[in-house]
Order: sequence, then C-alpha cells, then structure tokens
Amino acid sequence: MFITFLTDFGLQDDFVGTCHGVIKRIAPDAEIIDITHGIPPQAVLQGALVLANTLPYMPVGVHLAVIDPGVGGHRRSLALRDGEGRLYIGPDNGLLLPAAERAGIVDAHELANPAYALETVSRTFHGRDLFAPAAAHLARGVAIGELGPPIDPAALVRLELPEPSFGEGVLHATTLYVDSFGNIALNLTRDDLDRVGVVPGTRVELDVSGERYYAVATRTFTDARTGDVILFEDSYRNIAIAISNGDAAAMLHAVIGRPLSIRIV
Amino acid sequence: MFITFLTDFGLQDDFVGTCHGVIKRIAPDAEIIDITHGIPPQAVLQGALVLANTLPYMPVGVHLAVIDPGVGGHRRSLALRDGEGRLYIGPDNGLLLPAAERAGIVDAHELANPAYALETVSRTFHGRDLFAPAAAHLARGVAIGELGPPIDPAALVRLELPEPSFGEGVLHATTLYVDSFGNIALNLTRDDLDRVGVVPGTRVELDVSGERYYAVATRTFTDARTGDVILFEDSYRNIAIAISNGDAAAMLHAVIGRPLSIRIV
Amino acid sequence: MFITFLTDFGLQDDFVGTCHGVIKRIAPDAEIIDITHGIPPQAVLQGALVLANTLPYMPVGVHLAVIDPGVGGHRRSLALRDGEGRLYIGPDNGLLLPAAERAGIVDAHELANPAYALETVSRTFHGRDLFAPAAAHLARGVAIGELGPPIDPAALVRLELPEPSFGEGVLHATTLYVDSFGNIALNLTRDDLDRVGVVPGTRVELDVSGERYYAVATRTFTDARTGDVILFEDSYRNIAIAISNGDAAAMLHAVIGRPLSIRIV
Repeated sequence: MFITFLTDFGLQDDFVGTCHGVIKRIAPDAEIIDITHGIPPQAVLQGALVLANTLPYMPVGVHLAVIDPGVGGHRRSLALRDGEGRLYIGPDNGLLLPAAERAGIVDAHELANPAYALETVSRTFHGRDLFAPAAAHLARGVAIGELGPPIDPAALVRLELPEPSFGEGVLHATTLYVDSFGNIALNLTRDDLDRVGVVPGTRVELDVSGERYYAVATRTFTDARTGDVILFEDSYRNIAIAISNGDAAAMLHAVIGRPLSIRIV
Repeated sequence: MFITFLTDFGLQDDFVGTCHGVIKRIAPDAEIIDITHGIPPQAVLQGALVLANTLPYMPVGVHLAVIDPGVGGHRRSLALRDGEGRLYIGPDNGLLLPAAERAGIVDAHELANPAYALETVSRTFHGRDLFAPAAAHLARGVAIGELGPPIDPAALVRLELPEPSFGEGVLHATTLYVDSFGNIALNLTRDDLDRVGVVPGTRVELDVSGERYYAVATRTFTDARTGDVILFEDSYRNIAIAISNGDAAAMLHAVIGRPLSIRIV
Repeated sequence: MFITFLTDFGLQDDFVGTCHGVIKRIAPDAEIIDITHGIPPQAVLQGALVLANTLPYMPVGVHLAVIDPGVGGHRRSLALRDGEGRLYIGPDNGLLLPAAERAGIVDAHELANPAYALETVSRTFHGRDLFAPAAAHLARGVAIGELGPPIDPAALVRLELPEPSFGEGVLHATTLYVDSFGNIALNLTRDDLDRVGVVPGTRVELDVSGERYYAVATRTFTDARTGDVILFEDSYRNIAIAISNGDAAAMLHAVIGRPLSIRIV
C-alpha cells in the first residue's frame, strides 16, 4: 500500500524522517511517496491545491497531509474516504478537501481511537504522534471506522476559494500560490482566458495593486524572449504568470490571496 | 532490514544519493529511512542529540550517522551494538553515543576489514567509501565482529553535555541546538523547570549575554499570542524557547553552546 | 529494477514527488534512488558530470535525468542503452552522454511512442509526462525499441568539455562546477598536476580573471589550516579548490566555465 505524504515541515529538520520512522514501525511494508515538504509554513490553501493537483498522478492509497497551524488547539483530526477508494489523513482545516472532493467524500471519521495513535500524543507534533500512525494503520488494513466516530461530510471545515470576475476585455483574478521558480499560479483556467478573448499571442496589461506590467499570452516558455512576462497554462492547467529566465513573483511582489487584473491592450 | 541515515551532507549535492546507491549495490533489499541530512555542517553535538531523540521512533535496524569533521585524519570508525539489538555505524567522535547508550552498548568494533569497504577509500568521503558499505553489509547479515577488532566501550570518544545549574528562582541553562523554525532547544527538562517553580503561566526573564527578554511558560504555541516569547516542552521533551509566529533564534541571537539564564519575575 | 533520478527541479515544489507518483503508478515495484535534485537550474554540463561521476556507485538500472532548458521546443527525447546494460532516459541535450559513454552507447532511440507517455503531454513538464513514464515502462520490462525509432548515436547532441592546457610550471584550467560547500571542481586530474610538477606540499598561485590567490596542494582537508586555500583531489578524482572551513567559490567568485591559471611559486 502506498502512503503519499505532503507537509510544510521542510527537509532541514528531522520532522519528515521521524514520521517515516513512525510509519515503518507500524506498517513496514507501506511505501511512502513524498509529494513535497516544501509548502510554505502554515500555507493551508497552497497545500490543499498542490495536493489536489498532484493527486491524479499518485497511486491510489493513503494520502497523508499535515499543514496544521491549529495543532494543540481544538481543530479535529480526520480520516476520509473518497469515491475512488482513496483514503486521507490530516487536520480538519480544509487541507484535504479539494483533493478528497474530486471523487466525492463517501466516509468521514474523526481520529479519536487512542489505539491508533502513539502512546503519548504531544501538543505540538500531531504529524508524528497522531496522523502518521493513523495513516500507517490504514495502510496495513485497519478499517477507517475503527479510527473514530463518523462525521457528517457537510460539517467539515472548507477553504474559501476565490472566484475570478469578468469585465469587457478584463479579468479580475487572485494569486493562489507561487512556486520556487517564482511562477505565480492564478485562480484561472484557459476557459476563463478564452471568455475575454485572451489567446496565445494576445498582449495584456497586468495591474497588481496599481503597478502595471505588460505581458503576453504564450503557449510555453520557449515561445518567449528572456525577460518577457508571460501568461501561460501551467502543467496543472492553471493559468500562471512567469518571466522567461526570471522570477515573476519577485518582480511583481506576488502575495498569495492578492487580487490582480488582466486587461487586453 | 532498515538502515536509518543521518548526516550534515545537505540535499543540494549528490552525497546522500550516492550513499544510497552504494548501499543498494551491496544490500538491494535494505530499506533506507533518511532521518535528516540538514544537521548544520560539522555540528556533532546537534547530530548526536537528534539521533538520540529520534531513535525511539525508528524501527530497530542499522543506524548510520555521518558528521565527520575529522575525516581523513586519525579518528577511528565504529560499529556498535546496543542492548536492544540496534546497530550503529559512524565516526568515533561522540556522534553515536547518546543514541547507543540509551539501551547500553554491548559490543564495539573498529571498522578495519577492507572486505567491507569500497575498493578505494578516498580521504574525504568516508560516508560513501567506508560507512555506507559497512552499514549495508550489516543489513545483509554480516556479523559485527567481521568488520574489525573489538574496542572497549569505555575508550570511545564522548561529547561533553553541559549540565544546568540552579539558584533561588533562577536556572542557568545552555543552548543545545536550533531548528529551522528558530526554536531554541535547551539542556533542560520539565523537571528542571518544576524544581525552580516555573509552570505553565509563569512569567520569566531570559538573560542572554546581558540582553534581557520577557517570556512566559506555556503548554503549547496555541496558548500564546503572536510575537510572545514562550518557554515550552517541545515534542522531544526538551524545554525550548520559541516565538509564536516568529524566529526566536534570530531575535535572541542564539548560538549553540552559549549559556542563558531563566529568572522568575 | 532500480531507477536513479537526477534533476534540477529542487525539492521545494512537488515536481520530484509527482514524478515519483507517475513512476509508481506504472511500475509499482520499481525502486527509485534520488541521486540529487539540486543541480542549479538549467546547468546541463554540471548535471552531466554529476551523473557520470556518481554512475559507478549506482546499481545497474534505468538512469533518468532531466535538466531541460529546451522543453516545449524541438529537442529530441532519448532512450539509450550502454555496454553494461544500463538504460538512460532524458532530453537530447548532452546531459546523458558523459555517463552513457563510459561503457559505450550500444542503442539509441527517440521517445516517440505515445503508448509509453501519459495521455496528455504538457509543453512544460516532460519530466512528469514523458520521461518518468518512459523510465517506468523500461523498469517493468518494456524493450527499448518499443519506445520509438532508432537514432544513430553519432547524431546525439554532445556537450563541449573544456580541455586544460599546459605551460612551463603553469596549467590553464576551467571551472566545471561548484558544490554547496563552495568547493570548485576543475577540468583537471592528478595526472595533469603531476605533468607540471604540482604534488602535495607544492605552493601555487591561482590567477582568476586577474585576481591572485596563494594556495597549497594537499592530500586532504585535515592537512590544511583554517582559512588556507587548498588544491586537492576530490572524492570523484577531480582536482578541486577549497578553503579549509570556508567557501572557496564565494571568495574566488567562481563562475562555471570561467578559465583559471595555476602557477608554481
């Protein structure tokens, strides 16, 4: 059984390695795929989108995700099952839902059975003490219902995903996240660009908090000259802003959640 | 058989990956758990403490650790076995001992048999040429005594662990290490705090080289307001200093090995 | 079957993890060894040299490497087989050749059969959509000839490797790459140093773009005093420049591809 693993722990400390150890003590035959541990600290929305984007590329298995600003407080801990048989473990803060709702959530439980956690659960590291053990027990065949009482899926915490809006030759979008190359993912798809008539080759003006930048819609990086600001469909089919051989996020002072306008010139 | 692996190599270069390759050529069925490779360069004490802290979360197996400022010099190379049957491979510079002594060292050998090293041993990369092969041979069942002659465990190099001292309503502690979030681990346990009457809610003054900071003892991060300096029991049961949503190590100019006083106000 | 994996993707984003997922969906039993994902972005020459240097330490298997500035353009995608039975997957930009030519390329094919790629191949992420699937299919036993039509190995893109030149007591060398510790690897072997009479203990003057530095040839770091600039044979048998407990690349303003002279003083 595969366990995919996504966190904001980073790889400098031992947190990820310790969770691997915990999983392997419980489920020696489980195989762990580290999706990423480089989500910016506490960036629940970015983590939720990366989990949902990468899910179709992952084998069916247990999908463990921990970005948990509320650790030690009152947020619930979850086990979910979706319509494809994928299982999810993580905090009830919206992190799991964009992924789990792709195929529909068919079962939701609160992690409440101490038999499936470590003997001592710390107040600061539920990844190690609660979530990793739960994922490992699911991977070795424990039924989701064993982990704790059922929850109504409608009662799960949901993230608010900003919606784009449209005017005459203009789109109002929001920065969803930024990757390590400085590419800025927006809450737009190609259909949204089509709707206002932006196609490869269209020149546009970006308005970011009053600062203006010229950009051009392209199919791919290699269609752009070094230094060009481009608008393209990224490999997860989000519309993104990039600079050929540059860092768009730094130049445009990208901030997650900040609005931005795209106007045809 | 599991091989856990801890170093200061970082993940930017190929050093860790190359050691994985060496292990897999010798012991294709061994499974490697990377505890961390982000120990600061040559920080033997921090590495030793992280290895000892994380060991209880790791399956029994071979525990390979390489932080090796003395590579190419006269330090010995070690294989140890503890009372739980765990095996250890690394340099004789104190790195392995806080972990291996948890269950008591029952067997110590010097790595001296060239049959269990690579054919050519470089002067600068014993991780690849000497330690990884020795760990892999142990994992595939070679007896520890085959690796080289026995050593008296009493003759192994030991690290000096600073001890706290106590006054009237004051503790004198030392910074042991700092994690990537800027949390500062001290050479204190909750018992030490209890001894001078520091409990959750107690307000204290930290004196770091003459600079003073107010802090409060708390159970967990979520009990603190953003920006508060807090004193808490971390997930490995060390007392640590943190700033809620901040970087305590940067603000307090934390330096490993530096003394620090905690006084009740 | 082992798949080794080397890229310039970094570990902050999900790119490496997503490729792992893609491989495991196709070849659940393949085992992935991450050589490194820390090659500087688009540094094809450095990636090619690291792949060739580390290859002898890797089990025979499929060697997947992706550093791909030409993605989305007209460069070809390759599958190679060498005289040892090792298989290689990556772009036709020279990246694979220093490794694959060690044992001689016996078979070269262009990746052209859509049956062995993902259903949709994006313009920006061939690592996920084209190269990882091809590597996974080879690992599960698909014959290299199934992946696409043969190519004449003589027609593959080759990197230009700078050659050193020699004068009376002087060598003219080139910086090949720099590791994360600031060590500077040169296009020199010990034979080249011998040829002009540089042996351990020889004092030399380095001329880097008109800036001069004194250095000493040593066997290893531990023979040098803190702050000494040293010239030594690194663990892959390249001659390299380092500073004992320092960062030579920062001090000497190392730039990959820049010439440098070494003169006996």
